[in-house]
Amino acid sequence: MTYLRHLEACNRFDPQRFLPLLLAGRRVGFVRRDNARALDAFPRIFRIASDGIALAENIVGSDAVTAALGEATDGLIAAGSFDKRRGELFAVTDGWGGPLLFELDRGAVPFFGTRAYGVHLNGWRPGADGPALWIGKRAMDKKIAPGELDNLVAGGMGSGYGAWDTLLKEAAEEAGMPEALTVQAHAVGAIRYRMELPDGLRDDALFLYDIRMPVDFTPRNTDGEMEDFRLLSAQECLRRVRETSDFKFNVNLVLIDFGLRHGLIRPEDQDYLTLVEGLRGSLIRGGR
Amino acid sequence: MTYLRHLEACNRFDPQRFLPLLLAGRRVGFVRRDNARALDAFPRIFRIASDGIALAENIVGSDAVTAALGEATDGLIAAGSFDKRRGELFAVTDGWGGPLLFELDRGAVPFFGTRAYGVHLNGWRPGADGPALWIGKRAMDKKIAPGELDNLVAGGMGSGYGAWDTLLKEAAEEAGMPEALTVQAHAVGAIRYRMELPDGLRDDALFLYDIRMPVDFTPRNTDGEMEDFRLLSAQECLRRVRETSDFKFNVNLVLIDFGLRHGLIRPEDQDYLTLVEGLRGSLIRGGR
Repeated sequence: MTYLRHLEACNRFDPQRFLPLLLAGRRVGFVRRDNARALDAFPRIFRIASDGIALAENIVGSDAVTAALGEATDGLIAAGSFDKRRGELFAVTDGWGGPLLFELDRGAVPFFGTRAYGVHLNGWRPGADGPALWIGKRAMDKKIAPGELDNLVAGGMGSGYGAWDTLLKEAAEEAGMPEALTVQAHAVGAIRYRMELPDGLRDDALFLYDIRMPVDFTPRNTDGEMEDFRLLSAQECLRRVRETSDFKFNVNLVLIDFGLRHGLIRPEDQDYLTLVEGLRGSLIRGGR
Repeated sequence: MTYLRHLEACNRFDPQRFLPLLLAGRRVGFVRRDNARALDAFPRIFRIASDGIALAENIVGSDAVTAALGEATDGLIAAGSFDKRRGELFAVTDGWGGPLLFELDRGAVPFFGTRAYGVHLNGWRPGADGPALWIGKRAMDKKIAPGELDNLVAGGMGSGYGAWDTLLKEAAEEAGMPEALTVQAHAVGAIRYRMELPDGLRDDALFLYDIRMPVDFTPRNTDGEMEDFRLLSAQECLRRVRETSDFKFNVNLVLIDFGLRHGLIRPEDQDYLTLVEGLRGSLIRGGR
C-alpha cells in the first residue's frame, strides 16, 4: 500500500465526462454531462453547447450571476438534481485573492464544480516517537465520511471569510479552542486536488496550518461534527494512511504533507517527488 | 517587487528553442537548437532530426550510453561548446528513484539539459523576531553566482550518492558541520524549476532540509566555496528576496519555501497558491 493511492483517488477526474462552465469566456466550473441535461430547464440562464455551458450574456455582474445561479439552485433542488441548500455561500473568485465573480450555496458547489477553499489544522505535540497528532473522529450523522478520522480542525471557507478567520471560527466550533490558543497556529502551505463525486465535482484548495498544542489542553467538540478526539503518533497516523482507509479521503493528503514537512517521509521514498508535486496539483486534469 | 519574479526567472524556458534529447523514445534532456549543430560532429552517436535528437539505436545499456556521451563531452569541449569537465558524474535516471539510464559529467549537464538533483539545508535558530537563518556568502571565484548569498549548505547530487549522503558530505565540506550535528536535520520537501542558461539548460529538483542549529556552533567553510556565514533573521532574508537580487537565483526559491512552511508568507498574500504550486513545477514548460 502506498501514499500515492490517496493522491490518485483525490485526483480521479475525467474531463471528457464534464462540460466546462463558462462565465464571459472564462472557465469557472465543470458540470458533469449527465447533470448538464437538468440545465435545459433554465434557458434564460444557461447557453448549453457541445463544448461548454455559458452563462447568458445579459447576466452581468456578480450580483446578477449570484441571483441567476441561486434561481437555478432552487430549481435543481426541486427537480431532484441535488439534495438541498446548505445555507452557506461560497465565493467563486477569479483565482485565489482575485475579484469575486459570484456566490453559490455550498450545496450547489459539487453540481457546478466551482473551486472551493478550506482550511485544515494539524494539532501536534512532542511524543515518545516524534510528534503526536490530535485526531478527530467524525460524527456518525455527517453526510460526508461519517465515523472517519479527521484533522483537529477543518472547514470550508464561506464567502466573506478569509483563511485565518475561517481557522479561528472552526477551531472554536470544532475543537473548543479559545482564540488565544488558535492564534499560535502558523500557515505551512496548501494542497490541491480535483475529484469526481457522486453529485458532481470537488475542486479544492486547502490551506494548511500547524499548531503545537499545550499538554494541558484537550480538544472538545462544540458543534456536534466530531464524536471525539484522540492523540495518535504521526508515525501511527502515516501507517494507517498507507495501510487503511480510516481517514477521510482528503485528510490523507494533509497527513502526507505533514509527513513530508516533518521528515517522516523522506527523499529515500521513490515516490517522494511525485508526492511533493502531486499534493500541489500536478495530478489535476482539465487545466488549473 | 514580488516573490513571484524569482519563480518566473527560474522557469524561464521556451521549449521551441530546444530539441528533446531522446533515449529509446524517452525524453531525457533538452539541447538548445543553436547548440545542437555541434552534435553533427558525432554521427555515430546522435541521430538529429527536426523534432529531436536520438541516441543511435545500437548504443544500448547504461555503460554504452555513458561511454558515448563521454566521448561526445570530450569532443564538445575540444570544439569549445562548453568549458570543461567538472570531474563529477551525475546520474540520469528514469525519474527520481528509477533505474540508472546513464552517467554524465557535471560540466556537460547544461549542454544536454538532463535533470539534476541537489540538496539545500536551511540552518535556523530562534531569534528576536522569529527564526534566524545561517546564510553563506559565496566565494568571489565561484563560476556561478560569485559573491551572492546562499543557504548554509547546498550541493549537487553526484552519481552513487543519495540525498542524505550528499547532505552529510556537503555539510562537512561547506559548513564544517560534524555528522553528529547534521543528522539532526530533517527533510521538509522539494522544489522544481527549469531555466535556460547561457550554456544550455538547468532542470533541477532540489531536496530541502531544515536543521535547528545549536547556539554554540558557528559554521566554518572548509572547501573554499563560501567566503563567510552570517545570521540573518528570516524576515530580513525574505525582505531581501522581495526587494533585491542578493541571493543566488535558486536560493530565493528555497527561502520562499521556508517562509511558506514557517508561516512567514501567508494565505493572505494573493500570490500564495501560485507560489505553493510554482515551487513544485506548475510553471515548468515542456512537460514534466
